[in-house]
Amino acid sequence: MAKFMDVHTSMTGVSAEDLKAAHQADLDIQGEEGVDFQQAWADPTTGHVFCLSEAPNAEAVRRIHERTGHPADQIHEITITV
Amino acid sequence: MAKFMDVHTSMTGVSAEDLKAAHQADLDIQGEEGVDFQQAWADPTTGHVFCLSEAPNAEAVRRIHERTGHPADQIHEITITV
Repeated sequence: MAKFMDVHTSMTGVSAEDLKAAHQADLDIQGEEGVDFQQAWADPTTGHVFCLSEAPNAEAVRRIHERTGHPADQIHEITITV
Repeated sequence: MAKFMDVHTSMTGVSAEDLKAAHQADLDIQGEEGVDFQQAWADPTTGHVFCLSEAPNAEAVRRIHERTGHPADQIHEITITV
């Protein structure tokens, strides 16, 4: 398993309820791709949402977010954590 | 205190040692601005580094990173965490 930080850059104005629902939609199907979404952080003013996950590869993360209707704009593989 | 995710986008090739040293430099002076850097995640391939912190405001985060020689390219105030 590898670690990923994916970034959404166009979620301006997202509410806590919206983000919870989007995150829950990911959690509901993540097992089908072996993904484990761990946390999500949002800045509704800049529209940026950051999602930390463990997954077999970036494609698995991309597919889950696409299937739940909020594709990631960037997916970074995290190889250093301090 | 508020929560921030700052992003560095030009740290391609950063090593674990470099990131640890950069993070430690922030920790050494963060108290002067009331900042608490909690975690940093790096993707040396894309050059992106994500730093999560608690701080009085974004300016305090900006100043610490500038003083230690690695200014942030973006600073997002996190108001929703799921």
